[in-house]
Formats: sequence, structure tokens, C-alpha cells
Amino acid sequence: MGRVFNFSAGPAVLPEPVLQKAADEMLDFRGNGMSVMEMSHRSKMYLAIFQEVEQKLRDLMAIPQNYKVLFLQGGATLQFAAVPMNLMSRTGSADYAVTGMFSKKAMQEAQKYGKVNIACDAKPYAAIPRQRDLTLSADAAYFHYCHNNTIYGTCWDYVPETGNVPVVCDMSSCILSTELDVSKYGVIYAGAQKNMGPSGLTVVIVRDDLLGTAADYTPTVMNYAGQAENDSMINTPATYGIYLLGLVLDWVRDLGGLSAMRLHNEKKADVLYRVIDANGFYKPVAEKASRSLMNITFRCPSEELDKQFVKEAAAAGLVNLAGHRAVGGIRASIYNAMPMAGVEALAQFMCAFAAQNGGVAHV
Amino acid sequence: MGRVFNFSAGPAVLPEPVLQKAADEMLDFRGNGMSVMEMSHRSKMYLAIFQEVEQKLRDLMAIPQNYKVLFLQGGATLQFAAVPMNLMSRTGSADYAVTGMFSKKAMQEAQKYGKVNIACDAKPYAAIPRQRDLTLSADAAYFHYCHNNTIYGTCWDYVPETGNVPVVCDMSSCILSTELDVSKYGVIYAGAQKNMGPSGLTVVIVRDDLLGTAADYTPTVMNYAGQAENDSMINTPATYGIYLLGLVLDWVRDLGGLSAMRLHNEKKADVLYRVIDANGFYKPVAEKASRSLMNITFRCPSEELDKQFVKEAAAAGLVNLAGHRAVGGIRASIYNAMPMAGVEALAQFMCAFAAQNGGVAHV
Repeated sequence: MGRVFNFSAGPAVLPEPVLQKAADEMLDFRGNGMSVMEMSHRSKMYLAIFQEVEQKLRDLMAIPQNYKVLFLQGGATLQFAAVPMNLMSRTGSADYAVTGMFSKKAMQEAQKYGKVNIACDAKPYAAIPRQRDLTLSADAAYFHYCHNNTIYGTCWDYVPETGNVPVVCDMSSCILSTELDVSKYGVIYAGAQKNMGPSGLTVVIVRDDLLGTAADYTPTVMNYAGQAENDSMINTPATYGIYLLGLVLDWVRDLGGLSAMRLHNEKKADVLYRVIDANGFYKPVAEKASRSLMNITFRCPSEELDKQFVKEAAAAGLVNLAGHRAVGGIRASIYNAMPMAGVEALAQFMCAFAAQNGGVAHV
Repeated sequence: MGRVFNFSAGPAVLPEPVLQKAADEMLDFRGNGMSVMEMSHRSKMYLAIFQEVEQKLRDLMAIPQNYKVLFLQGGATLQFAAVPMNLMSRTGSADYAVTGMFSKKAMQEAQKYGKVNIACDAKPYAAIPRQRDLTLSADAAYFHYCHNNTIYGTCWDYVPETGNVPVVCDMSSCILSTELDVSKYGVIYAGAQKNMGPSGLTVVIVRDDLLGTAADYTPTVMNYAGQAENDSMINTPATYGIYLLGLVLDWVRDLGGLSAMRLHNEKKADVLYRVIDANGFYKPVAEKASRSLMNITFRCPSEELDKQFVKEAAAAGLVNLAGHRAVGGIRASIYNAMPMAGVEALAQFMCAFAAQNGGVAHV
């Protein structure tokens, strides 16, 4: 069969030209006679790839010079521990905004390493709290939040103001999807498997002045300062994932960079939200002001119809639309690599499905 | 150019049929309409791959039922911390055999988490100590050693007897290269990037009775018991690396399994060691009784000749032959995927190079 439209929340759809290039270069990377996978991470040919990827990421995201870019492993979940291990000792406590399952997991992990203040707990996670609703501590080592909540389909529409307290952000499901003022953050981290590449690669962007405060029990490869000094090569990084990130970065750049990506993502999300808002058949999960551009969450009038929707959509080549088990309903993850054609096909399917099942949902 | 013979110590050469299959399946895995890289780790299609890979590894290595197989991230170096974090609390101290740079790093990392006894320090790491030379503690939580020392080209020719103390082994550079009695070990771990697949995947094989003793500060994804309960999916594993491991396991099985692999590796190593031993031009780094089948280390009569050797060999399509910076000289890593043709080409080059530079080295 041909390629399907894959609405998976992650690992997720990758740009077809990226996969094609990876396939073409699999046995022989640009005349070097070997796959990127087979290259020593310390070889000249691999280091050239590695340094190029870092520079491309810096250029695209406009990462200031006083930030280090680290290419690590273990996913965002290992960062849930790495962040407090590296930063908690600065004051002994940290503020956590809980706006979904992953930010809650991050908060719980941090409790192993210091005192945690809950800046907010936005149950049932359908909306992002406003600045005035955050309980912030002046002496927090950092403030942690998750910018886009994959499971609930919510997204912060602002960067919290925290005074002198560094902002640490899990951007796993929104990095590279829009422009970003990196200078507002102390640490940004993201698992690659949504907008950047395959799982197994984690990108950490950390401001220089936050290096060097890791607790004694921090594993060597989790120490930001150590990895910064060693260009992320204390041990072998996820070399192939980094190469694929480079191909994705080329693709984003060639499409016009992050502002173009934002427009593309806004247009795609708008198509689906318009169908959802058109009438009462589909019920949105997230409140309007907190809607994600990456994960569009909604429900059919019944759980039976949710299941039928997912099944019939899959038969039509629109796959992985079941909501997360914690929320149910439908979730359409439309990361950068989801083309407008996939979103339009889904919108048409939604309209037809609503009409066939007693509702009317027109674009 | 065509494919070179790549003697890299890791990431290292992969079987060409594995790379070809990965390339062929890159855009559409067996009619599923997507790349393995794009599959949700919790999707049925990916779980089928995942479970098959575990079963293949269990079959090939004859892993007993009372062992869990974990697919983790972070490389062996993260396991240097994970092992003591998970096991040290059993008695508070552990025995470490130091036979090279990586076992030394493992020992130093463990010192963060408890008392470490040096069972041996085999400086200058040209030989593996005998059983009688090991200073073992009856109350150690575990005994740790590295079976094959990639940098020095040495390999243990026996599994240390430690009574009731569980044996923990770093097998990064020898796993899948020969048969193994898993039941002699408490924990076996290995980074994938030498004999198993791409970097970014770490395999841990752990005996059931060693689960459940992790220290409180152990990051959730580093807790063996938690990962065992969650089938290595506390968070997204390195999905593509696991798939590639599956392709490598098929390749090993089709060639006759681990006993055939051992014969293949013995024959290859023999070709190179015979050239080294033939006369005085090349000087072996490792003592005869401790020689590795995976990493063949030797020197030319001078550092200048070492450099010339590496350069001329590369020009002849034999690449990545420089020894590790800690040892110098020449290192030919000939993991499973290095074909006999590559070894024979290297042997011929060695003979010719010796003859041209005043020595005589005949096979």
C-alpha cells in the first residue's frame, strides 16, 4: 500500500523527503563508503555531520551564544530527573506547573531530589492557567512547565514571568513548530520523536550560567556541565538520530524556517478546529484559549462512536487517531511533517462521519 | 565509491543485508504505509516488532526464563551508574575488576553510590588477571567486570568464580560474538553500537532476584524493576534501534547462530594474529592468553610507521585503523559484521606494508 496519513502522537510522521534521503544514503553516505550508522562518533566524517546539525539548529531556533546545545539520550523522562539533579542544589526547591500527565510526572520525579512547590495543578487539564493563577516562589531554583500537553491537546500561549527564577521547559511536542525566544528560558529540553526525528535522541538547550551545580550523585552522562565540556560525547551519542535531525532541519529551513512552520501549523489546526466548532457533533477536549496546534483533541457523542470513528478512519488511511487512554476520544497529532493534504482528508472524513451518524459538521 | 572495509571500534560496520533491508523498508514497513521510525511505540504494529526482537534475542542467546531483557538508552556509560543505583543497596559495597579504561570508568562511577573494592587493577591492561589474582569480598553486592576491553584488545577467557556474589558484566564489545552461559551472570549489559546495531540502544539482561533494590534517587527510567514491569516502555524506547537489532539478529541466526559466529570470529582473528606473530615487524599490544577476537591491537616499529600504516590502509579502502588515543598503534575491530574478505584484505596489506618498510610479515 502507499503511505498512510499517520496522526500518531509520537513517535510520529516524518517528512517523506527526509525518509527518502535517509534510505538513499543508508549504505553509502555521500561517497564515504559506509552508513552514518557505521561511523565512529569521533571520526572526522561524523564530526562534520554533528557540528553541522548543531549549527543548523542554532540558526533555525536563533539560539543565543550563551546557550549550550546538548544531544543526549533517555527521552524527556530522563530529563525529569536530570533537571533537578543539575539545578535543584542552587536553592534546594523548585516550582512546578502541573498542566497534564507529563508535567505531573516531571514534578513527581523532582520530589526525589528536593522540595517541590506546585505552582498550579490545572486539573482536569483542559485549560492552561493564567499568569495570575501561578503560585511562584522567589527562591525557587527554577520554574518548570511543559509548553504543549500532548495528551490533552493544550498549549501555553505565553511564557510565564518568573522574575529571576530560570524557566525550564519540556518542549517535546512543540519544538520547531513555531518561533521561540530562547533567551526567556534557562533550559529547554525535548525528546526528538515528535518534530525532530526518531526516538532515542533528546535535545537539551541550557544557559551557560546554569552549568556546574549538579548534585554529586548525578550520573556522569546526565551532568549538563560535563556534557557541555565534552560536546555531548562523554560517551557515544545517538549518532543516527542526530543525522536524521539534520535532515529534518534542512527540510524545515527549505520550507521557510520556523515562521513558515507556524503559519503551516496554524492553517492545519484551523481546518480541524473549524470542523469541531461547526456544530455540536464533535466536542473539543481543550478550552479554546488553550488549544494546541500540534494535538487536536475532541470527542464524538459517545464512546462507541469514538471507536467507530477510529476504525473507519483507519480503513480510509487515516491512522492512529485514538485519544490517549487517560482521556479517550480522538486525538489528531499534526506535527510539522503532517501535510495539509492529510489534515484536509481528516476534515472531510470528520464531516462525512458526523453526517452519517446523525450530526452535521460542515467546514 | 563502493563500500569500504570499516574497522571502527564502534559505532561499527553493520551487515550489508541489514542496511539494505532497512533502506528498502524505510518509507513503508511491510505494507503498513509508514516507516518503523514513525510508529507509536504502543501501536500493535510496533509491539509486534518489539516482542519479536526480544524473543529472537532470547532464542539466540538462550536467555533463561528467570532473566528479564530490557531495551534502554544512554549507552554502557549510563549503566555504569544504573548498576550501582540498582544493586549497591544490597550490601553497600561492590567489587570491581579494572582491566581497561571502561572498567575503570565503571568503577569510578560506582564510587558515587557506595563502597568500591578493587578486585584487581591490571595496569597496563595488556593482560587479563587469573582467578587467583582477584581480591574478592564475600559481602559484595556484586562483582563487576568488562569482558572484552575494546581499547586494549584484551578479553577474559573465563567467567570469574565469585561464590554467591552476582556477576555483573559489560559486554558492549563482545555480545553476540560467541556462545555465552547467561546463567553465570546476574546482570549483562551492552551498548548496541558494536555487534547489535546503531548507537542509542542499550540492552540489559537482569536476573529476576536482583530486581527491586534500587536506591530512592534512581531516575525512574533507570530502575530495572520498573522497566521490567513496564516492558521497557516507561517512556518511548529507541524504537528504530530495536528494529535494527532485530534485523541483525535475523542475520546472525541465518548464518548459524552464536556458535557459527564464534567460528567465524576465531577464523578472522586468527588470520590477523598469524600475521602479527609471523615476525618482529608488528608488535602485539595484548598478551597471547588475553587476546580479543573483536579488537586486534598491534604496533608498527615506530609511531611514524603507525601513522603511515593508517593513512595508506585508508587509501586502500581499509578505514578506521588508528588505535585508541590512550594506546596508539593500530586497532582492527573485526566485529561480527566484518567479513572475512575485509580481514584478508587487511592481512595482505599488513604483509605488503611490512615488506615495504624493512620487515617481513608472512601469513
